[in-house]
Amino acid sequence: MPAEDTMAKLVSLSKRRGFVYPASEIYGGLASSWDYGPLGVELKRNVKDAWWQATVQERDDVVGLDSAILQSPEVWRASGHVDNFTDPLIDCKKCKGRFRADDLQNQYCPEKPSKHPGECEGELTEARQFNLMFKTFVGPVEEDASVAYLRPETAQGIFINFSNVLTSSRRKPPFGIAQIGKSFRNEITPGNFLFRTREFEQMEMEFFVPPDDWERWYQEWQKTRFEWYVDLGVRRDRLRLREHGADELAHYSRACSDVEYEFPFGWSELEGIAFRTDYDLLQHTERSGKPLKFFDPQSKEHYTPYVIEPAAGCDRATLAFLCDAYTEEQVEGEERVVLKLHPRLAPIKAAFLPLVKKEGMPERARKLQQAVSRRFPTFFDAAAAIGRRYRRQDEVGTPYCVTIDGQTAEDQAVTVRDRDSMTQERVAEDQLLSFLDERIHGSLTSADG
Amino acid sequence: MPAEDTMAKLVSLSKRRGFVYPASEIYGGLASSWDYGPLGVELKRNVKDAWWQATVQERDDVVGLDSAILQSPEVWRASGHVDNFTDPLIDCKKCKGRFRADDLQNQYCPEKPSKHPGECEGELTEARQFNLMFKTFVGPVEEDASVAYLRPETAQGIFINFSNVLTSSRRKPPFGIAQIGKSFRNEITPGNFLFRTREFEQMEMEFFVPPDDWERWYQEWQKTRFEWYVDLGVRRDRLRLREHGADELAHYSRACSDVEYEFPFGWSELEGIAFRTDYDLLQHTERSGKPLKFFDPQSKEHYTPYVIEPAAGCDRATLAFLCDAYTEEQVEGEERVVLKLHPRLAPIKAAFLPLVKKEGMPERARKLQQAVSRRFPTFFDAAAAIGRRYRRQDEVGTPYCVTIDGQTAEDQAVTVRDRDSMTQERVAEDQLLSFLDERIHGSLTSADG
Repeated sequence: MPAEDTMAKLVSLSKRRGFVYPASEIYGGLASSWDYGPLGVELKRNVKDAWWQATVQERDDVVGLDSAILQSPEVWRASGHVDNFTDPLIDCKKCKGRFRADDLQNQYCPEKPSKHPGECEGELTEARQFNLMFKTFVGPVEEDASVAYLRPETAQGIFINFSNVLTSSRRKPPFGIAQIGKSFRNEITPGNFLFRTREFEQMEMEFFVPPDDWERWYQEWQKTRFEWYVDLGVRRDRLRLREHGADELAHYSRACSDVEYEFPFGWSELEGIAFRTDYDLLQHTERSGKPLKFFDPQSKEHYTPYVIEPAAGCDRATLAFLCDAYTEEQVEGEERVVLKLHPRLAPIKAAFLPLVKKEGMPERARKLQQAVSRRFPTFFDAAAAIGRRYRRQDEVGTPYCVTIDGQTAEDQAVTVRDRDSMTQERVAEDQLLSFLDERIHGSLTSADG
Repeated sequence: MPAEDTMAKLVSLSKRRGFVYPASEIYGGLASSWDYGPLGVELKRNVKDAWWQATVQERDDVVGLDSAILQSPEVWRASGHVDNFTDPLIDCKKCKGRFRADDLQNQYCPEKPSKHPGECEGELTEARQFNLMFKTFVGPVEEDASVAYLRPETAQGIFINFSNVLTSSRRKPPFGIAQIGKSFRNEITPGNFLFRTREFEQMEMEFFVPPDDWERWYQEWQKTRFEWYVDLGVRRDRLRLREHGADELAHYSRACSDVEYEFPFGWSELEGIAFRTDYDLLQHTERSGKPLKFFDPQSKEHYTPYVIEPAAGCDRATLAFLCDAYTEEQVEGEERVVLKLHPRLAPIKAAFLPLVKKEGMPERARKLQQAVSRRFPTFFDAAAAIGRRYRRQDEVGTPYCVTIDGQTAEDQAVTVRDRDSMTQERVAEDQLLSFLDERIHGSLTSADG
């Protein structure tokens, strides 16, 4: 399937079924800005929860944090963002288009979309450095003293809380601090649906290690993060790790690898695992005058830990899961569109579909649904032929469809249909919750694992 | 206990144990801005999850949404925020202090903190209207065309998506659209810890009803939202519903009730349940030219639904849960500080405390913890006397402490201590997860519940 087709189909399905809508659509939209609809918000919540569970909850060496979007401007002076977080910007004096100087071959003239900037006889300015941070003003008056920036990354909120976390949670390196939250970058050329947006959500973790240990943890986190996507169902052959060349490295970074996914528009970064040395902690130490060090009781010395940072984009991960799940297949001569999302990620875990309207069947289905909905998002659909109802659920990735039929009143059992194999299984009503639980979360009946 | 004492103790405990830190603290802080630490982020996640589960997941008539913080400025022109979302601001020419004209009796001169503005012989300006929306600029140049506002409420993101949700999720009134997310208000006088901050998180729901039905749903949602706090353990006698007087109502509102909590600093609003009529949908219809109506297939007519809006503050709910849970009591002649948080809200559900270091006990405790941590946040603590370890967990609200002792190797059982009653119970290791699950989430073993 041509790449544009796949993306166009995904964008269309997303809007039609309530995954993602163009933001501010009734007012003509806001460039490359998106709102998550009823199914999209559940999918994105599941992506974030899966990351949090793997990165914080199940590990004994990582704790969470939720720092403010608006921080002291000093934070961004220390981190170098005020001076250096820029892209080279070129204007066209003729059409007023604005372009990234380092990416002209991928951009087009707004007036002559078949031509790249410059080829269209417009007059291009010299490139100037444009800071990507959004600026705002705290307090009643727009004056320099009250300038604040919307954070361009969640990472710095972690570094400035290093001592607070160390003290209050009695940690010692190696340990990590993880955060999920919105960041903002005034991108010159956002695009590719959810892939690059000016407002986006990050899932970042700073892992603090004794300096001698950095290489082991750098390797470890590359592996851990790569396998996270595989565990959640992404095809291994559409994922790769790409080590940055020396010319690609940010000034604070001594090594960096990207987890890349083969999107319909090409291989692109899902997340970076960066070795940031002690750069950030030292920058903040210097500017704030507050030492950000760890006292090692064994060596009796203070040292500044090194940092390994796995930084993932939540929206582009969500997009990757959608792209990877999207499947068109032939079933008995008809086309079936199915989102083969991992059950943990699926927005609706089980749909309840009563087959007969007599004998209180819809009520029985409702009652069963309500019990399950205390644990999982569910959906109830009594309208249309059963085949049509299955297709509706396939298209949004619901892994299990539960039908309540004439026999249910006799044997207290229901039929559970599996989305991918389309096989059906008879399950006792009072076993349904544990049946679903085990398939969605894996076996948890035995606490001693 | 005097009110200031309670708040001071809570702020201190919050920082010391990692619930809440002053934001940008190493740079001297940012007024009334807070970061959630390792325990605070879990508590706040639990508050949001409990709201989402009650409001979206368990109901068949509410769906979720996650709209962007940066929306078209047209949204805020239509809603009236550009023209009317203001507070009256007074400056002092002498000390440069800034005050809310409608709240002077609760504010103090920065230079003479014992005096209210005006009493301090400063020279006050006339009140002028100050817009509370944070302004920023999208795109490379600061010009009017690219002005955008950080949303001051999540509600408008719901109204502008009304038709998208209606179409994609096949709903009909009465139904609701719920959203959790950050909002921003450039408050003149923020304060009272998490209670009033410039950056805050909302849990809002717009419930669309046939116009004739508004009163029933207005009553219904007042009750539902009040009981939500009670179900999560807040003392009923510290909660009240307060109906607004006609003079308090916003221009778009025909009725409004607040759920108030008796904070240490007095009765204050936790959330408002407002009857917004069809004001917002009509405003957006008029400005966008896109009809935001529902077609009733029975009456064959299009109509604009009325709206009931329960709008809760996530941070102030979190503060209320903390205040309500904070308890000092005497146990065997010693003071015990305990956070009696509802088990669903507690940041750590179970702490694993090995009693003996011999015979692989710590390893056995670790193994048990790891199995449980797949479902719940847990904590492991092998240091210090057991009494001290219990106190540490009491202070952060951990409902269950699991001790692994010399007998565990013989009978494959552990001792579970209840935080509030301090009673102990012997539980088989392979029953521990379901034991905890039932106490935290209620019985779910029977799906036909």
